[in-house]
Amino acid sequence: MTGSYKKLVDHFSKLAHLEHALTFLQWDHMVMMPPGGNNSRSAAIAELTSLHHQQLTSRKTGDLLEEATGDTPTEKQSIKEMRREYQQAVCLPSDLVKAKSLAGSICEHDWREQRQKNDWTSFLNNFQEVVALARQEAQARFDAATEPLNTPYDAMLELYCAGDSAEFITSIFTHLKSELPPLLQRVMEQQNGNTRPTFTGPYPIEAQKELNQQLMKSLGFNFDRGRMDVSAHPFSTGCRGDQRITTRFCDNGFLNALLATAHETGHASYEDGLPPQWDNLPIGNARNLSLHESQSLLFEKQIFLSTPFLNHFSSFINKHLPTTDAYSRQQLRNAAISVQPSFIRVEADEVTYPLHVILRFEIEKELINGNVQVEEIPELWDLKMKDYLNLSTKDNYKDGCMQDMHWTDGSFGYFPSYTMGALNGAQFFSTIKKTFTDWEERLSTGDISFITTWLQDNIWSKASSMDGQEIITAATGEKTNADHFLTHLDERYLQNLY
Amino acid sequence: MTGSYKKLVDHFSKLAHLEHALTFLQWDHMVMMPPGGNNSRSAAIAELTSLHHQQLTSRKTGDLLEEATGDTPTEKQSIKEMRREYQQAVCLPSDLVKAKSLAGSICEHDWREQRQKNDWTSFLNNFQEVVALARQEAQARFDAATEPLNTPYDAMLELYCAGDSAEFITSIFTHLKSELPPLLQRVMEQQNGNTRPTFTGPYPIEAQKELNQQLMKSLGFNFDRGRMDVSAHPFSTGCRGDQRITTRFCDNGFLNALLATAHETGHASYEDGLPPQWDNLPIGNARNLSLHESQSLLFEKQIFLSTPFLNHFSSFINKHLPTTDAYSRQQLRNAAISVQPSFIRVEADEVTYPLHVILRFEIEKELINGNVQVEEIPELWDLKMKDYLNLSTKDNYKDGCMQDMHWTDGSFGYFPSYTMGALNGAQFFSTIKKTFTDWEERLSTGDISFITTWLQDNIWSKASSMDGQEIITAATGEKTNADHFLTHLDERYLQNLY
Repeated sequence: MTGSYKKLVDHFSKLAHLEHALTFLQWDHMVMMPPGGNNSRSAAIAELTSLHHQQLTSRKTGDLLEEATGDTPTEKQSIKEMRREYQQAVCLPSDLVKAKSLAGSICEHDWREQRQKNDWTSFLNNFQEVVALARQEAQARFDAATEPLNTPYDAMLELYCAGDSAEFITSIFTHLKSELPPLLQRVMEQQNGNTRPTFTGPYPIEAQKELNQQLMKSLGFNFDRGRMDVSAHPFSTGCRGDQRITTRFCDNGFLNALLATAHETGHASYEDGLPPQWDNLPIGNARNLSLHESQSLLFEKQIFLSTPFLNHFSSFINKHLPTTDAYSRQQLRNAAISVQPSFIRVEADEVTYPLHVILRFEIEKELINGNVQVEEIPELWDLKMKDYLNLSTKDNYKDGCMQDMHWTDGSFGYFPSYTMGALNGAQFFSTIKKTFTDWEERLSTGDISFITTWLQDNIWSKASSMDGQEIITAATGEKTNADHFLTHLDERYLQNLY
Repeated sequence: MTGSYKKLVDHFSKLAHLEHALTFLQWDHMVMMPPGGNNSRSAAIAELTSLHHQQLTSRKTGDLLEEATGDTPTEKQSIKEMRREYQQAVCLPSDLVKAKSLAGSICEHDWREQRQKNDWTSFLNNFQEVVALARQEAQARFDAATEPLNTPYDAMLELYCAGDSAEFITSIFTHLKSELPPLLQRVMEQQNGNTRPTFTGPYPIEAQKELNQQLMKSLGFNFDRGRMDVSAHPFSTGCRGDQRITTRFCDNGFLNALLATAHETGHASYEDGLPPQWDNLPIGNARNLSLHESQSLLFEKQIFLSTPFLNHFSSFINKHLPTTDAYSRQQLRNAAISVQPSFIRVEADEVTYPLHVILRFEIEKELINGNVQVEEIPELWDLKMKDYLNLSTKDNYKDGCMQDMHWTDGSFGYFPSYTMGALNGAQFFSTIKKTFTDWEERLSTGDISFITTWLQDNIWSKASSMDGQEIITAATGEKTNADHFLTHLDERYLQNLY
């Protein structure tokens, strides 16, 4: 290790300790904190965020990065990732950061009530400012980019889908967009005659909690190195040795909680599988959200929803929730993979979900690049919903363009990571199936270790030591290719194979 | 507000945000964190502690304090408390702080196993170093004291019992020491014929949890402004609007958990009652541990254990734990106030507890002042235990001088706060009883609002705006006086009044 690199490692470790504090203060905020703690917590989080930003963007970081040379390819890559983090923080004027944070907080806060009231006009008032500042942010990031980008929106994509250009994503989404609507039509026709039970419960929350903890164990989660709790919206966070996932329960159903738990367990497994030798360094972080989402969706859609695993796991469902004995495995499967176009993205099945994302990607790309104005969004939304899912959202803002939180605080560029993740997950699983020809037999006994070992070797251990598409190519022989996902849908929903 | 004072307020608010982060990272560590998170959490806590120490002891703090003048008596007192905090942090050389922290961690860690093995010799090895460093610490604090102190041990007392000198405490403890053993003898004789039920349970943990939450509500705790959780040792912590207490349950008894919950609710109520206008400032902190403990013991011993309140609350006990219906209120009371000399401080009743504390106070005072050597502790302990409680701890280190954690990390000066707290609590309650002559009737209906209002007005709202004995004198007409506590014991245990 060179002296200059060692100094950087120490410096970034200190930053990581502040990130650790923020991680768990935010987890506590979402999961544990009583309402009375809000003011004090917000002030503490703001203070630590500002301290972290000061230290990351300090002259010292700049100087250390300028001096630093790496001895080995790994050290060089590590420094490159440090530079990326530094650049992404230092390229925005602090006035813009503050203005965006303030406008985002106000817009998000007011949105909760405005959405319920279907009040687009009031929302527009706040949202105009958020978009104006997001455009400034995108432009500043675009101008500061070390490798040239095509558009300002590409600079936003770098935050969530690092390495995937808008052009690349567009070409993939165009292909998907042409294949999915006819496929959807055929799936709907085929599922038309299915016996699909309506679960009513009640399924006691304590029993569901134990069932979900069993699912986590079945998926390889180690409770000495993490927790499961309850929050309004499922999420996962944590640090080395302490992965925290949350889920939510309702007592008249159990499938959604299981899906959320499998999903978050995928995220947590990726984090837990990152190489310990790079702890606290940017090179040791998960590569990007497209890869993160590929892991959660692989756990949720490819493993949990697969017929062999679901059949295996149904005995645990019956054990913890005895009244589910009334349903056959086929009925359970029908309920779990039922497909139905709907207004709401977060409730969508895996066939229609990408269409929700493509719609958002197409709008936000043009919005950030200045080719679409905020006022035009509702009409565009309605047109695309009709086109892709045959549903109208005319005058229905709350189930249309006001349904998501992402845009309210200016997180443009986030949405495509969901579908890029679904495609990557299907692509990884396709390679796994080819590599382990007895995969179906193994999954039917609840053995998933061959999958996690493959993911550990090919994805998790890489962390940010390579670019995203390099990791995907090394693991599967090609860049992200939507055909694997389409084949998966065909096999599951039309051929009823898995 | 003068400009120089305003700058100090801003500076100390930033420090308070770091303290907030540390508070909740430590709470999480004790209550939520899985074992795998230990390394990462310890590193983050060390980093934030060091950042906080750097900022508190910085040149900037010193300069701001030097410049600062206060406009009003309150501002002057506020600056005085800031100076106290600064002085207590800046007076120790950083090498000593590090050495003490390291020696304390090692000694405490090894002690957990050494105590189980009754291994005084190995413990001594580590403990010698802890004491040597604690003596250095005491000397450094003594030398730096802004108001002259009598002995180095007095400088340690300032950390926990601020305002009470060793001489003052000694005079009070000498009085107690002469009164308690004969009183104990008479109580034991009187309780000899009591029917005292042996609880066996099982008392389901979930039902106990609800019962303890009910107790907290009955004692005025607001669950929108705090939580109750489970930890190995009950404690309380938190911040404005977010008070967190913990307790522990065993399924073959329920009284200890209720006592712990009442105790911690007292601590939390004091914190919640501190004046919001002084948030984040040293003047807004609880005065000292002697007053803190007076609140917890007032809630536990004076309120919860009082006959009228316990009779009232027994209907909740019967409701949540139906098998307790088998015991009469008198039997429940007998169990709750049973007195028996024993080896272990934390298990002691309120009659014998002060003798455990006096023994420790007498030894640690001479130890820190250099008049007693570490090797002499076991013999001294045995002599005093025989003298005060008629029990021998010869060769029994684990139930003798190795039973407590306090000394293992060098927290000398802490112990007396427990008994000063018991005395202060009894003294406050004596004034409350005189002020509200219908107190017994009110308590028997579960009304404690007259007590909390009195505490709010006389103790909580004062925070650190006055010295400890000034607060006590303003509230009760005199300084700490053990007679109120002795009268309380006489009334409860000999006259069977409350």
